[in-house]
Amino acid sequence: MIVPLPAHVVDDLVRRTLAEDLGLAGDVSTDTAIAAGAHGVAEIVARHAGTVAGLDVALAVFPAVDRAVTAAAQVAEGDRVGAGSVLARVQGPTRALLTGERAALNLLGHASGIATATRAVVDAVAGSGARIVDTRKTTPGLRALEKHAVRCGGGHNHRFGLFDAVMLKDNHLIAAGGIAPAVAAVRAQVGHTVHIEVEVDHLGQVHEALAAGADSILLDNLGDDDLRTAVGLVAGRAITEASGGITPERAAAVAATGVDVISLGWLTHSAPRLDVALELLPSDGS
Amino acid sequence: MIVPLPAHVVDDLVRRTLAEDLGLAGDVSTDTAIAAGAHGVAEIVARHAGTVAGLDVALAVFPAVDRAVTAAAQVAEGDRVGAGSVLARVQGPTRALLTGERAALNLLGHASGIATATRAVVDAVAGSGARIVDTRKTTPGLRALEKHAVRCGGGHNHRFGLFDAVMLKDNHLIAAGGIAPAVAAVRAQVGHTVHIEVEVDHLGQVHEALAAGADSILLDNLGDDDLRTAVGLVAGRAITEASGGITPERAAAVAATGVDVISLGWLTHSAPRLDVALELLPSDGS
Amino acid sequence: MIVPLPAHVVDDLVRRTLAEDLGLAGDVSTDTAIAAGAHGVAEIVARHAGTVAGLDVALAVFPAVDRAVTAAAQVAEGDRVGAGSVLARVQGPTRALLTGERAALNLLGHASGIATATRAVVDAVAGSGARIVDTRKTTPGLRALEKHAVRCGGGHNHRFGLFDAVMLKDNHLIAAGGIAPAVAAVRAQVGHTVHIEVEVDHLGQVHEALAAGADSILLDNLGDDDLRTAVGLVAGRAITEASGGITPERAAAVAATGVDVISLGWLTHSAPRLDVALELLPSDGS
Amino acid sequence: MIVPLPAHVVDDLVRRTLAEDLGLAGDVSTDTAIAAGAHGVAEIVARHAGTVAGLDVALAVFPAVDRAVTAAAQVAEGDRVGAGSVLARVQGPTRALLTGERAALNLLGHASGIATATRAVVDAVAGSGARIVDTRKTTPGLRALEKHAVRCGGGHNHRFGLFDAVMLKDNHLIAAGGIAPAVAAVRAQVGHTVHIEVEVDHLGQVHEALAAGADSILLDNLGDDDLRTAVGLVAGRAITEASGGITPERAAAVAATGVDVISLGWLTHSAPRLDVALELLPSDGS
Amino acid sequence: MIVPLPAHVVDDLVRRTLAEDLGLAGDVSTDTAIAAGAHGVAEIVARHAGTVAGLDVALAVFPAVDRAVTAAAQVAEGDRVGAGSVLARVQGPTRALLTGERAALNLLGHASGIATATRAVVDAVAGSGARIVDTRKTTPGLRALEKHAVRCGGGHNHRFGLFDAVMLKDNHLIAAGGIAPAVAAVRAQVGHTVHIEVEVDHLGQVHEALAAGADSILLDNLGDDDLRTAVGLVAGRAITEASGGITPERAAAVAATGVDVISLGWLTHSAPRLDVALELLPSDGS
Amino acid sequence: MIVPLPAHVVDDLVRRTLAEDLGLAGDVSTDTAIAAGAHGVAEIVARHAGTVAGLDVALAVFPAVDRAVTAAAQVAEGDRVGAGSVLARVQGPTRALLTGERAALNLLGHASGIATATRAVVDAVAGSGARIVDTRKTTPGLRALEKHAVRCGGGHNHRFGLFDAVMLKDNHLIAAGGIAPAVAAVRAQVGHTVHIEVEVDHLGQVHEALAAGADSILLDNLGDDDLRTAVGLVAGRAITEASGGITPERAAAVAATGVDVISLGWLTHSAPRLDVALELLPSDGS
Repeated sequence: MIVPLPAHVVDDLVRRTLAEDLGLAGDVSTDTAIAAGAHGVAEIVARHAGTVAGLDVALAVFPAVDRAVTAAAQVAEGDRVGAGSVLARVQGPTRALLTGERAALNLLGHASGIATATRAVVDAVAGSGARIVDTRKTTPGLRALEKHAVRCGGGHNHRFGLFDAVMLKDNHLIAAGGIAPAVAAVRAQVGHTVHIEVEVDHLGQVHEALAAGADSILLDNLGDDDLRTAVGLVAGRAITEASGGITPERAAAVAATGVDVISLGWLTHSAPRLDVALELLPSDGS
Repeated sequence: MIVPLPAHVVDDLVRRTLAEDLGLAGDVSTDTAIAAGAHGVAEIVARHAGTVAGLDVALAVFPAVDRAVTAAAQVAEGDRVGAGSVLARVQGPTRALLTGERAALNLLGHASGIATATRAVVDAVAGSGARIVDTRKTTPGLRALEKHAVRCGGGHNHRFGLFDAVMLKDNHLIAAGGIAPAVAAVRAQVGHTVHIEVEVDHLGQVHEALAAGADSILLDNLGDDDLRTAVGLVAGRAITEASGGITPERAAAVAATGVDVISLGWLTHSAPRLDVALELLPSDGS
Repeated sequence: MIVPLPAHVVDDLVRRTLAEDLGLAGDVSTDTAIAAGAHGVAEIVARHAGTVAGLDVALAVFPAVDRAVTAAAQVAEGDRVGAGSVLARVQGPTRALLTGERAALNLLGHASGIATATRAVVDAVAGSGARIVDTRKTTPGLRALEKHAVRCGGGHNHRFGLFDAVMLKDNHLIAAGGIAPAVAAVRAQVGHTVHIEVEVDHLGQVHEALAAGADSILLDNLGDDDLRTAVGLVAGRAITEASGGITPERAAAVAATGVDVISLGWLTHSAPRLDVALELLPSDGS
Repeated sequence: MIVPLPAHVVDDLVRRTLAEDLGLAGDVSTDTAIAAGAHGVAEIVARHAGTVAGLDVALAVFPAVDRAVTAAAQVAEGDRVGAGSVLARVQGPTRALLTGERAALNLLGHASGIATATRAVVDAVAGSGARIVDTRKTTPGLRALEKHAVRCGGGHNHRFGLFDAVMLKDNHLIAAGGIAPAVAAVRAQVGHTVHIEVEVDHLGQVHEALAAGADSILLDNLGDDDLRTAVGLVAGRAITEASGGITPERAAAVAATGVDVISLGWLTHSAPRLDVALELLPSDGS
Repeated sequence: MIVPLPAHVVDDLVRRTLAEDLGLAGDVSTDTAIAAGAHGVAEIVARHAGTVAGLDVALAVFPAVDRAVTAAAQVAEGDRVGAGSVLARVQGPTRALLTGERAALNLLGHASGIATATRAVVDAVAGSGARIVDTRKTTPGLRALEKHAVRCGGGHNHRFGLFDAVMLKDNHLIAAGGIAPAVAAVRAQVGHTVHIEVEVDHLGQVHEALAAGADSILLDNLGDDDLRTAVGLVAGRAITEASGGITPERAAAVAATGVDVISLGWLTHSAPRLDVALELLPSDGS
Repeated sequence: MIVPLPAHVVDDLVRRTLAEDLGLAGDVSTDTAIAAGAHGVAEIVARHAGTVAGLDVALAVFPAVDRAVTAAAQVAEGDRVGAGSVLARVQGPTRALLTGERAALNLLGHASGIATATRAVVDAVAGSGARIVDTRKTTPGLRALEKHAVRCGGGHNHRFGLFDAVMLKDNHLIAAGGIAPAVAAVRAQVGHTVHIEVEVDHLGQVHEALAAGADSILLDNLGDDDLRTAVGLVAGRAITEASGGITPERAAAVAATGVDVISLGWLTHSAPRLDVALELLPSDGS
């Protein structure tokens, strides 16, 4: 069961996407070539196999163009679908189907691309106990949708922003005089529900981070052997996260080191879209 | 000289990107670990070679976090840069440098990824006379930035949305009873500055489109031989555009057919980001 | 068939118009003098003959005040109506009818005033082949509605803004070193769907504009004889537009010169409103 | 001394006007034909005599396009100016001057048209003691600017909306069972600073309105004789307002009846714009 | 019958309150612990006796979370309720009930706290003829809701802001050279529906304010004897308002002085909330 | 050192507060009674002793009214001040000082009221090791400011919303079939940085919550003895939070039970404002 996007996020994405595509003049092609009274039925199909995400928000596009459109999902968020699968059926005024097409497909294709990429990595580490998580390397304005897409792909979310968890990196540690004083300063000020993660870039810092009481330790750019050693050092006293240049190909090896969490910026900043299309069904001749 | 983004677009992108990352609580890591009075200097660097886009909007992030930050670009939009190049220098309160880092890099990396991908294709067709253009397959909310990035990469923009040019596709043509009546209906209603492009998917439609007075003809999913034939049929009486499944690798062959314009959705929906980073410079010990 | 306003434009106009009239305290007259339970039926009538525009957006005002109101148009956008015509019937809570009255009428009267003015000029040039078009001299915030109104009056739209077509005026031409280099510079940079219009203010520039490849030539402030000469010089190789101080009275003479397009700023910046009113029907005594 | 527009209203008008004209692509003519480094000086001039309004908001357009522009008013809000008068001097990047031109002129021309129309009526009733006031028949989204323009023309403002004063019309009076119960019901509920005006359409209602304690009495569509009689009946116990079909030409006669206030919807819904232009000064050849 | 909040104010409050509580990730507790298909019924109850305000806006929260929720008020705005009273019944998806709970209760509890405090003071002055009114000392962003709550408690509203009535305080009077010139300057410029209130802080100024033609006189920080004297001096020629440090306890004594209006900032800036709760009913076992 | 509000939150609060108070017509009292050229100096003073919060946002009000105003804080966020203390000095156009006064004071007084209330409770538990924290019972639209105010008073923040930490209450536990399955379901789905708190209402549930792996245990409405017992049972394996009906008076006793965190909704929903004022200094007579 995938945690859904909040309604106000869906509304905002739909409104913004449509306003960008329609501007003030609207769909001049459709409004001048297609009769206002024409009705049609269309299917949204996946042209390649993948994992679905963003279908709910994509389908919300059509009634926002014209309330007379009804849209029915044929698959659920997070479902794996084969090439040619029908993802949804949309019907109503033909104009609205064509006008909403690109906005809907851009939302769906982008999110499903991320879900598909995530699913591949999640599958690659299956059985290992390691979680695949996203980062804050998201596309501006789309963090909620992209993190939802990661969930649809079987991944988990890292923090949503600078506001909901602490991550102490090099610069924080240097400025604060080391791991111990940094964690202490932060712990003293943040709320008791705020998780503190410390980034370390060599094994020597792992003990420091543990001693300082870090909730998680981000093992940045370590090789697989060092990751395995680090996991042993930590021994369950903190959550271990591997990060930094982890490609989908390398994920399984990293998972085998025993880390709890593997984060990949690539999922949200560079996954190619899933190819999806809207096909207007021929009206029957009866 | 690259056409810049309008000021209100820059402001809106910056505000939205920061609000998404900072939420209501702000950067709890930095605000609790770094002293308010600390000042620093940072460089934004490219970790891989590429073409720069989005630097202006990325640099606008920092003064939006704290007016005391100054940012100076070291390269211009559209410049090609090598791995390790310094793109900009930013200085001011250390907190603001760290707080704005990810928002700035996400904007810059996304846009520069598109510019870099575009540049590669533009270079591949150099000398051919063919233009590389984008499509409406953009990331929701980022069309202005992405089309700007395509310009930075040496490409050109196709229409910005449904509002600023006509594109008549299958469904429009069927609904209107063919190319001639479709173009006639549209021409009668749209303004005289509105360009009309007709999508054809086999050579037989090219004459029809010409006869109907199309300004451009989109040759959809044709092979190179058919493209060459179509260009000959058109003989300069309309602009010819090749589209549909054109990979960067195939672009040069397509350009050699003589088409005027080659459009690739891939540029904006699937180009991987350019790897960029912010490096805080060590303060000198003097 | 008039191209309609996009749904998000209608919603935004309604919301903004109501917020401006209701503020935070609402309709204190109606809310304190009229019982909450009272229901009524009202008609929106034209007090003078004219051409209707903005009826859709005007009727959307009432359900935005109170979802219980239903509104039914009795005429269509673009219809010519006589004095006393009933344009729509609205029924529901009396409070909502009175509260929405002025917002609805201001939208309708403003747009219909423009449609009516446009219709008069369009009628004046009937049979000539010349199109009557608007300009960018619109009322701030209302460009979409006003350009829609021009369409309702039988006119056509010039470009919507600075973004969707090129117009090269004196200052551009001087700065770029003349018509030829200006057009060349622009053509090299803008997308292939962008129409380029060049403004000329004497006959000598017509050949230059043609030679430069202008798509349209704006003949600014020329007398009728010069307009006729220009049309002959152009001989169909570009679209000709007459502009500058063209009053409704002069339009027919200008049309007779053979120009393709006649633009009048007056349509949108100075047309008087159409007098429209909302009349609450007496409830029957039964 | 004219009451100025609040800063947030100015900012909002400027932002909205520019966004509408620039869209996402910006000023493609200027950005491709004019060099980024070019600087210029321009004057905003009145082509016809009139009264100035909206100059402050018009000048705020340019720095919103590019912070490097400086603008200096040469006249003040409310000043009467002759044809050819220089209203302001603007200098900075030539691109920004041309890009902001139409947005600025549309704001200025619209507001100054209203101020000029108001001034003519105010002058026509000079010496009579009657005030010229506006109505709620304003252009959607521009009420603040238009009411400011009326002030610039020497007029006064009627209520700003449904929220800041009570106006009881026919429908309110019928629904509430007459003038006395209507005023009583309203007075019992609204705050003590809320002014109550009652609309009467024949002399017989004047005593009722007075007896009910109306603060103002709107004499709707009465002839001059009836207006004079009404003023006598009221005898200073309430403010008298003449309204309904009062043309600028008839205003003096109405004022001579002794009414305190004359309201004209025409000022804001149908005043033609004042013709204003931006002229780029030739750069000197030195 | 309480004047309701305008629909756009309700929508805006609901949207803002929910966005603040849900952020981009939504209700992670409920979405992961409660099944999507679960349905429930809940009651909103008052845990203490009080006066209800904000119930309409509170109930609008739930359908904004999920359109499938229906909410039915059991009491009306302004009703007095005892501890344990059921104020509303809400049913639909259990997730939406839990997700909207806090947003709804925060709106309801805040507004009802103000209504309850107002009601107590209104009751304390019952029979005196004095009105209890609010001030502009409201919580930022909530003025409309808080002034509505005061009405629900039987109070009346003072001006809504700086825009809808004049209040001349010390600093205005000093700057303008005294009461008479201040009122004259203001009266000459503001519209005829604008009420002018003058603040006086000793009895000597009462005659001045009356002579200047003030509509209301605010008697600031006067003792009860001075208030009684001032009321006698005014003798019905202006509205008298007592203000400044008036506690609920002192209100009755102040009312006994004969003042028309008593204003208390405390009502909106310091009234404690009414304790309200949402109780999910046990599903029956059938 | 208090974590500051993000710049975009400050901007938004200032804009919203001013727009609410100024509307479209602005400050009609000041703009008609005070000369545009008048300049002044004012002090913001505390009329009662308290703890300062919201001074930064309050001072940002004035330049938003008029950029010519400068404001200088005399104390810092979180400072304790005595009655009569000068908190800031503001100087510039007199109009802007008076126009911004109420907006600034409403922000400052509200936030400082919360800080002052928090400080009293924090002081009451000093030495105990217990933290005083807020809840989600905040005033709609002001959560960021109010949680900042709690920090200024020496308190800490509980979660900001439904999005940044999990709190499992009765209804969640029942619906999920108990504490163990509820925590398991949530833990499996939420990100690794998400803190999970479980609410228990009797001692018997404490072991269950511990066994389930709760990060924190909220001890709801337990008496002091039960709290002490619970703390012993938990023995440091989770964070303990006391909640429910904890008055400022009872806080010390609760703290003495050894709980880690004490949460009080009262801090944000019912703390009275701190009395603050703006005093315009007399201009010297020289």
